[in-house]
Amino acid sequence: MDLSRSAVAKMEEVSSSGEDDLWLRMRTEARRDAEAEPVLASFLYSTILAHRSLDRALAFHLGNKLASNTLLSTHLVTLILDTFMEDAEIRNAVRADIKAVKERDPACVSYSHCMLNFKGFLACQAHRVAHRLWQQGRNFLALTLQSRVSEEFHVDIHPAARIGKGILFDHATGVVVGETAVIGNNVSILHNVTLGGTGALGGDRHPKLRDGVLVGAGSILLGPITVGEGAKIGAGSLVLSDVPPHTTAVGNPARLVRGKRGPERLQEIPSKTMDHTSFMEGWSDFVI
Amino acid sequence: MDLSRSAVAKMEEVSSSGEDDLWLRMRTEARRDAEAEPVLASFLYSTILAHRSLDRALAFHLGNKLASNTLLSTHLVTLILDTFMEDAEIRNAVRADIKAVKERDPACVSYSHCMLNFKGFLACQAHRVAHRLWQQGRNFLALTLQSRVSEEFHVDIHPAARIGKGILFDHATGVVVGETAVIGNNVSILHNVTLGGTGALGGDRHPKLRDGVLVGAGSILLGPITVGEGAKIGAGSLVLSDVPPHTTAVGNPARLVRGKRGPERLQEIPSKTMDHTSFMEGWSDFVI
Amino acid sequence: MDLSRSAVAKMEEVSSSGEDDLWLRMRTEARRDAEAEPVLASFLYSTILAHRSLDRALAFHLGNKLASNTLLSTHLVTLILDTFMEDAEIRNAVRADIKAVKERDPACVSYSHCMLNFKGFLACQAHRVAHRLWQQGRNFLALTLQSRVSEEFHVDIHPAARIGKGILFDHATGVVVGETAVIGNNVSILHNVTLGGTGALGGDRHPKLRDGVLVGAGSILLGPITVGEGAKIGAGSLVLSDVPPHTTAVGNPARLVRGKRGPERLQEIPSKTMDHTSFMEGWSDFVI
Amino acid sequence: MDLSRSAVAKMEEVSSSGEDDLWLRMRTEARRDAEAEPVLASFLYSTILAHRSLDRALAFHLGNKLASNTLLSTHLVTLILDTFMEDAEIRNAVRADIKAVKERDPACVSYSHCMLNFKGFLACQAHRVAHRLWQQGRNFLALTLQSRVSEEFHVDIHPAARIGKGILFDHATGVVVGETAVIGNNVSILHNVTLGGTGALGGDRHPKLRDGVLVGAGSILLGPITVGEGAKIGAGSLVLSDVPPHTTAVGNPARLVRGKRGPERLQEIPSKTMDHTSFMEGWSDFVI
Amino acid sequence: MDLSRSAVAKMEEVSSSGEDDLWLRMRTEARRDAEAEPVLASFLYSTILAHRSLDRALAFHLGNKLASNTLLSTHLVTLILDTFMEDAEIRNAVRADIKAVKERDPACVSYSHCMLNFKGFLACQAHRVAHRLWQQGRNFLALTLQSRVSEEFHVDIHPAARIGKGILFDHATGVVVGETAVIGNNVSILHNVTLGGTGALGGDRHPKLRDGVLVGAGSILLGPITVGEGAKIGAGSLVLSDVPPHTTAVGNPARLVRGKRGPERLQEIPSKTMDHTSFMEGWSDFVI
Amino acid sequence: MDLSRSAVAKMEEVSSSGEDDLWLRMRTEARRDAEAEPVLASFLYSTILAHRSLDRALAFHLGNKLASNTLLSTHLVTLILDTFMEDAEIRNAVRADIKAVKERDPACVSYSHCMLNFKGFLACQAHRVAHRLWQQGRNFLALTLQSRVSEEFHVDIHPAARIGKGILFDHATGVVVGETAVIGNNVSILHNVTLGGTGALGGDRHPKLRDGVLVGAGSILLGPITVGEGAKIGAGSLVLSDVPPHTTAVGNPARLVRGKRGPERLQEIPSKTMDHTSFMEGWSDFVI
Repeated sequence: MDLSRSAVAKMEEVSSSGEDDLWLRMRTEARRDAEAEPVLASFLYSTILAHRSLDRALAFHLGNKLASNTLLSTHLVTLILDTFMEDAEIRNAVRADIKAVKERDPACVSYSHCMLNFKGFLACQAHRVAHRLWQQGRNFLALTLQSRVSEEFHVDIHPAARIGKGILFDHATGVVVGETAVIGNNVSILHNVTLGGTGALGGDRHPKLRDGVLVGAGSILLGPITVGEGAKIGAGSLVLSDVPPHTTAVGNPARLVRGKRGPERLQEIPSKTMDHTSFMEGWSDFVI
Repeated sequence: MDLSRSAVAKMEEVSSSGEDDLWLRMRTEARRDAEAEPVLASFLYSTILAHRSLDRALAFHLGNKLASNTLLSTHLVTLILDTFMEDAEIRNAVRADIKAVKERDPACVSYSHCMLNFKGFLACQAHRVAHRLWQQGRNFLALTLQSRVSEEFHVDIHPAARIGKGILFDHATGVVVGETAVIGNNVSILHNVTLGGTGALGGDRHPKLRDGVLVGAGSILLGPITVGEGAKIGAGSLVLSDVPPHTTAVGNPARLVRGKRGPERLQEIPSKTMDHTSFMEGWSDFVI
Repeated sequence: MDLSRSAVAKMEEVSSSGEDDLWLRMRTEARRDAEAEPVLASFLYSTILAHRSLDRALAFHLGNKLASNTLLSTHLVTLILDTFMEDAEIRNAVRADIKAVKERDPACVSYSHCMLNFKGFLACQAHRVAHRLWQQGRNFLALTLQSRVSEEFHVDIHPAARIGKGILFDHATGVVVGETAVIGNNVSILHNVTLGGTGALGGDRHPKLRDGVLVGAGSILLGPITVGEGAKIGAGSLVLSDVPPHTTAVGNPARLVRGKRGPERLQEIPSKTMDHTSFMEGWSDFVI
Repeated sequence: MDLSRSAVAKMEEVSSSGEDDLWLRMRTEARRDAEAEPVLASFLYSTILAHRSLDRALAFHLGNKLASNTLLSTHLVTLILDTFMEDAEIRNAVRADIKAVKERDPACVSYSHCMLNFKGFLACQAHRVAHRLWQQGRNFLALTLQSRVSEEFHVDIHPAARIGKGILFDHATGVVVGETAVIGNNVSILHNVTLGGTGALGGDRHPKLRDGVLVGAGSILLGPITVGEGAKIGAGSLVLSDVPPHTTAVGNPARLVRGKRGPERLQEIPSKTMDHTSFMEGWSDFVI
Repeated sequence: MDLSRSAVAKMEEVSSSGEDDLWLRMRTEARRDAEAEPVLASFLYSTILAHRSLDRALAFHLGNKLASNTLLSTHLVTLILDTFMEDAEIRNAVRADIKAVKERDPACVSYSHCMLNFKGFLACQAHRVAHRLWQQGRNFLALTLQSRVSEEFHVDIHPAARIGKGILFDHATGVVVGETAVIGNNVSILHNVTLGGTGALGGDRHPKLRDGVLVGAGSILLGPITVGEGAKIGAGSLVLSDVPPHTTAVGNPARLVRGKRGPERLQEIPSKTMDHTSFMEGWSDFVI
Repeated sequence: MDLSRSAVAKMEEVSSSGEDDLWLRMRTEARRDAEAEPVLASFLYSTILAHRSLDRALAFHLGNKLASNTLLSTHLVTLILDTFMEDAEIRNAVRADIKAVKERDPACVSYSHCMLNFKGFLACQAHRVAHRLWQQGRNFLALTLQSRVSEEFHVDIHPAARIGKGILFDHATGVVVGETAVIGNNVSILHNVTLGGTGALGGDRHPKLRDGVLVGAGSILLGPITVGEGAKIGAGSLVLSDVPPHTTAVGNPARLVRGKRGPERLQEIPSKTMDHTSFMEGWSDFVI
C-alpha cells in the first residue's frame, strides 16, 4: 500500500480544516517578504514556503531551534510533528496563540513574524509538546525539551504545567513557570515573570491564573494562590495571596488598587488591552 | 576595472581615519593574548587578527554569533559589513561604545575583550544595524535581526528604538527596550532593565533617557516618561513618572532621594561613575 | 612507555575513589531512560554512557554546550577535562552540587537529569573551571569562558568569584555574580539574582554569602555586604546592608522579618528546605 | 481527525509486510553492537534504533549524509521518506540491495553494516529517489541530489539511468553511470567503473547491462552497447562492443576469453560468485 | 567617506560589463526552478538569488563547500571574492567555463545547474583562486585550498598548474593535474584522468595540453609530453609520448589511430564534439 | 591523586622521545606560516600550535575530519588519541610516514603541510587506528572508521589489512586495499590503485607488497600474488601474477620489462626515486 503525497496532504487538510486561512495568509506574507528582501528569501522558503502546512513549518522551525550537536534536528522535527499530528488541541492552540500575539502586540507586524521570531511563542508551543509527552509518561523526554527551551529561549516551563490557549508571552526572557502552575485561556504574561513554588517538597505549590489575566514585567507570584479571571498584576509586583477577579494588584509586596475592601473593578480584559500602567495613576502619583 | 585589495584597504583606511589607534591597540592586545594562550590563539586570529579593520572583524564576529542553520553566517557578515560601510555614524558609535565599556566597567580588561565577549556590546551594535535597516524600510529584516539578538544575547531592542553613542549595557541579560524608546549619549544600563510601553495600541509609549543617565539592575521604566540628563535610577526600581535631571529615583514605586520638593542634586555623571549605591545610605538606612 | 587504557582507567578510578557510587547510579539511570525512550538513547549514550567517568562525561557535555564556530568543542573538552584532572576539589564540588540539586529541587528527577539538563548546574561547573584558570593567571581564557557561559546559560559569574560546594542555582536565567563576591557552601540561589557591585572602580565591592544561605528569585544584593550563615533573602528583595545569621530579610528595600531589634530566628537551614514563603505569612498578610 | 502514531505505524507495517524480518534483524545487530561498543552506541541509536522502520532509518541516514549548510537535513529526510512511502518498488529494491551486499561481499559483516557504512549502497538508494523525482518531471531537484551524491559518495549516476534491484556497488569510488544507461537485476559493479556515452549530443548513448552481469574494477564501457545476461567484464577493461550472454570480456581493448568465435560459456552467475580472476588464468598466463 | 551599496553595485556592474547576460539568465533560471520546486527554493535563493553578481554567488557557494570546522566559510568567501575582484581574467574564465559546460555536456540543463552542481566546474574555479595565490607567493594558502578541493571534489590540481579558459572537467572524480602541467583553452577532460609527473625530483615533469584537446575517462598521461592542438586521447589510454595535433591516440600503451606514419586527421575540435568513440570503430573492431 | 598537566606532558615526552625534533620543526613551520598568512593563522593554531604533541595534534585533526553529525568529533578525538597513546608502533609509523611523504613528493613543501593537507597520509593513519581496533576484536568500530575514511578521503582500506611504515599514498583518490592485503615498509602507492581480491568467499585473497615497492597510478593488482622487494608496477597496469623482486611490470595485462626470462634488474629502490616512467622508454617506444 502506497501513501501518496496527495493522500497525506488530504489528511492534513482535513485535520486542519478551518485553519487554512491563517496558513494561507502566512504564506502570502512570507512570499511578499521574500520578494522584497532577497537576503531573507532563503530563510523564508526554508521555514515557511517549503512546507505543506503550518504544523509542518512550525515543527521544522522548532526542531531546528532546539537541536544541538547531541540532539539532532531531524529527530526533533519528527517528534514534534508526530505530537502535533496526534493532538488536534495543540494544533488549535498554536493557531490561537499566533492570533493572540498579532492582536495584542503592536510590535508584531505579521503572523509569520510571530511564528518565526517570537521566542515566547516558540517556547510556549515547545511546552505544549513537552506537556503531552509528560502526560504520556515520557517524563525524561519532556524534561529534556524543557531544558532545551530554557537554554534557547530563556523560558523555563515545567512540562507538567497546564497552559490554555490564546497565550502571549511577550519578550519572554526570564519567565519561569512551575510544575503545578495553571494558566487559563487568553492570558498575557510579560518577561521576567515567575510563577514559582516554594520548598523542597512536592505537591501543589504554584499559582493558578484564570482566563484573561495580565501579568506585568518582572512580577513574582509565589505559592498555590489564585489570580482571578480578568485580574491584572502590575509590573514589578511580588504577589503572595489570592487576587480577586477583575481587580489590580501592584507593588512589592502587592496591594489591591483602591484597597482590599473596595478594589477598583476593571471594565475590560487586561490581557487584551495590555494596559499596564493606567491603573498606576492613582496608585503611584505620590511617587517621584 | 579591477578593485585591487590595496584600493579597498585604502578606502577603509580613509573611511575610518582617526580610528586606527583603537584598532591597532586591539590587534596588539589580541596578539599578546594569542601568544600567552595557544588554546585561544585560533579564536583570536579568526575573530581579530585575520581582519583588515575593526569593522570587518566586528561584522565577522556578529555574523557568526547571529547565524543559525536557516540564516547563514556568510549572508549575515555581508549584510552587517555593508551597513557599517554605508554609515560613518555607526562606525563612530561602535568605537565610542568600546571605549565606554572599557572605561566604566572594571571587569573589562581590554578593548578586544569588550568586542569579543560582552554580549551587551554585541547586542547594541547589532541593534545599530537593525535600526538602519528599519529606517530604510527593510522592516522584516530588521525584526529578524532583533529576534536573533534576543535569542543569542537575551537583549530585546526594537529596531525602531533610537540609541546614542558611548553606551554600556552591563551584563545585559533580560534587557528590553521598546519601539518608541530613546536613549541618549553616554548612558549606562544594567541587566534586567525594561524600557517598556503599555497597551495593545501603537504610538509614542516608551521612556526617553537623556544623556548620562544610569539605570540600575532590574529596574522597570514604563510609559513615555523622560529621565533627565545625568539622572540615576536605583537598582530594582519601578519608575512611572518623569525623573528630573541630576536627581536619583529609587524604590518600587520609585521616589526621589531627599523627596520631590528638594531632591539631592548629583555632582557627577552617574553613567560614568557607575555609582549604584552611595545614594542608598540615607535612603535605606532604616532597612534591616 | 605506553599509557594503556586500563592504566588510565585505574588512575581515574583512584582519583575518584568514593565517587563511584554516584557515577554508577547516573549510568543506571541513563541506561533505564535510554531503554524507555529510543529517541533519546543516542543523546544519553553520547553524553553519559560512552564515557569512563563522570568527569569525562561532564567535560564532554560542557565542551559541546560552550563550543561555537570559532571555539571548537574538541579544544574545550580537553581544556575542561585537564582542569578537572588537576584539581580534586573541583571534582568533589561537582559531585556535591549534583547531590544538592537532586535533594533540594523536587523537579529534579534523577542525577543524570541534573547533569544533562540544569543550566544552573552547568554554569556553576564551567565557573569552577574558569576560576581555576583565573587563579593560574590565565585571565583572558577565564573571561572567554565566562562570556560563553553567559551567552549559553544566561548566568554571568566573574571568574574571580569564589564559590563553595553543594550549590543550587535553580532555573538560573539572569543570575549575575560579581568579581569579589563570595558564596559559601550549601547555598541555594534562584533565578534573576544579582550579587552586584557598584562604581567604576575596582576593589572589594560585592556581597559575601555564608554557608546555608537561600536567596529568592529576583533579589538584588549590592555592595560588600555579608549575608550571615543560614540567612534567607525573600524573593524580589533589594538588599544593601548586612543580614544577620539565621534571619530573614525581605522587601524593596529589604527589612528583617519581625524587625531589626528582635528578628525571627530560623530553625532550619533555608537553602535546604527551600522554603521561600512561609515567613511571608506574618509579613505580608496586610497586602491585597 | 487525528493521525495517531499507532495508525501510522500500522500503515508502515502493512506497506512493508514481509520485510519485517530484515528490519528486526538489523535492529538486533545494532543492539548487539551498541552493547559491545559504547562509543558507537549513540551512532547506532541515532541511525537505527531510534526509528520505527527501515525506510525511516535509511531516509534519516541519507538525509544527514547529503545535507549541506545550504540544503538542510530536515528537508532532505522528509523528501526521501516521502518518496520511499510513495513507491513500494523502491522499498523492495532497498531490501534486495541490502541482501545482495551481505551475500556477495565477504567484508560485509552484517545488514546494518551495509546500510550504515557502504557508500555504494547509499549512493544507489539516493539514486532511486532521484530517479523517481526525474520521472515526475522534478528534474532540477533530481540533478541536485545526483550532485550531492557525487560530492559525498564519489558515485555519479544520472537520475534518468534505470537500475534494477539486487545491486552491489562495491567500494564504489569513481563510478559513473550515464543518462541512458540501463542496469538489470542482480548486477555487481566494482569501483572506478564507467558506463559512459560519447559526444555532445543527446539521445541513447550509454551501455545496457542485463541481469547478473559483473563488471570488474576500473573498467570503462562506452556507447549504447549491450552486455548480455550473466556476462563478465574483467577488471581494467575497455569495452566498446556488445558482449554476448554468459561470456567473459577482458583487456584494453576488450577481447572475449577463448575468442570471438567460441567464447567460453560461464556456468555460474558472475555477479553472485564475484569471481574476477579465475578466467584470467588462461588469458594472462603469458604475462610476467 | 561612505561606500554606499549602490556605488559598490556600480563598480561590480562596470567590472563585469558584457557579462550581465549570463548572470541575468542564471537568475531567471533559478527563479523558475525555485517557483517549481519549493523544497529547493531556499537553496536557490541562498546560493544565487540573494547575490548581486555572479562573482559573489560563486564565492559564496565555493566558500561554503570548502569550509570545514577549522576553516570558516566566512573567511573563505572573503578570500575568494577578493581574488575574483582583483583579477578580471579569472572572472572571464569563470564565464567561459560555464558556457563550455553547458554547450558540451548534454546532461547540463542550465547555466545555474552548472554553477551549483558540477564539482568539476567548482574545482576548476577554486584552482583559479589557488593559482593566483601561488603566483603571489602565498604558497601555503594555495596548497591548503588545493587540499580542500581534493577532499571535497576529488580533483587534485597543483596550484602551480596553468589552466586556460573554456574548460570542461566532466564528472571529475579522480582527476590529478601536476605542478608543471599546462592546459590550453577549450579543453575537455573526463573523470579519472591523470596529468602526472614522475620521480622524486622537481623541475618540468608534467604534460602540456594544447587548445581544443579532449582526454577520455581514465587516461593517464605521464611526463613533460605535449598533446597537440585539437588532438584526442581515447578513454583508458596510457600516454607517454607527444601526440601530434589533430590526431587520436588510444590504448595502453597508446598508439595513434591509423599509425604513427599517417595518422588520421580530425576534422573537428574533439573537446567540443566530445566524440569519444567514433574513432574506435576501425581500431577496435577486432575486439570481442 | 591529581594528574597534573606537567605529569601528562612528561609521559608524552617520554613516550615520544627522539621524536621531538619532528614535532618542533612542524611547530616552527606552522608559526612561520601563521605569521605570513593571517587568514590561515586560526587554522594553524587550532590544528598544530594549540597542541602539546604531534599525537594530540593529529588525533584532533583526524577526529575533526572524520566526524559527522551522528559521530561527534569529541568522541573520535578521544578514541584516536587513546589508540595512539596505547601503541608506540603507531606513533613511530606516523613519524616515518610524514618523513617519507616529505622526502619523496616534491610537491610536499613542509612536514606540517603533509600532516594537515595530504589525504593519503591522513587515511593511512586512520587505518592504523582501525587496524588496532580490529586486532582487539572491536570490528564494528573499525569498519565504521574505514567507512568514514572512504567517504572523506576516498581511500578504502579494510581494517584487517597490514601496512608497514614509511608509506606514501600520493594523491590517494580511489585507492582500494582489501582485507588480506599486506603492504611492507617504505612502499609508495599512487592514486586509483587497487589491491583487490576476487570471489564472494573469504580467505587469503589479496596481494602482498614487499618493502620498497612502487605502484603507479591506476594499476589494479588482483589475487593473493606477491610483488617482490623493490619491484615496480607501471601506471595503468593490470597485475595478476607474482612480480619478482627488483623488476618492473607494466601493461594490461602486465608484462615484465625485458621479458619473463631476463627481466631488467632495478638498481635503486623505486618507492624512493618515485621514477614511474624511465623504464618505459624501451617498452613503449613503438607507441604513438
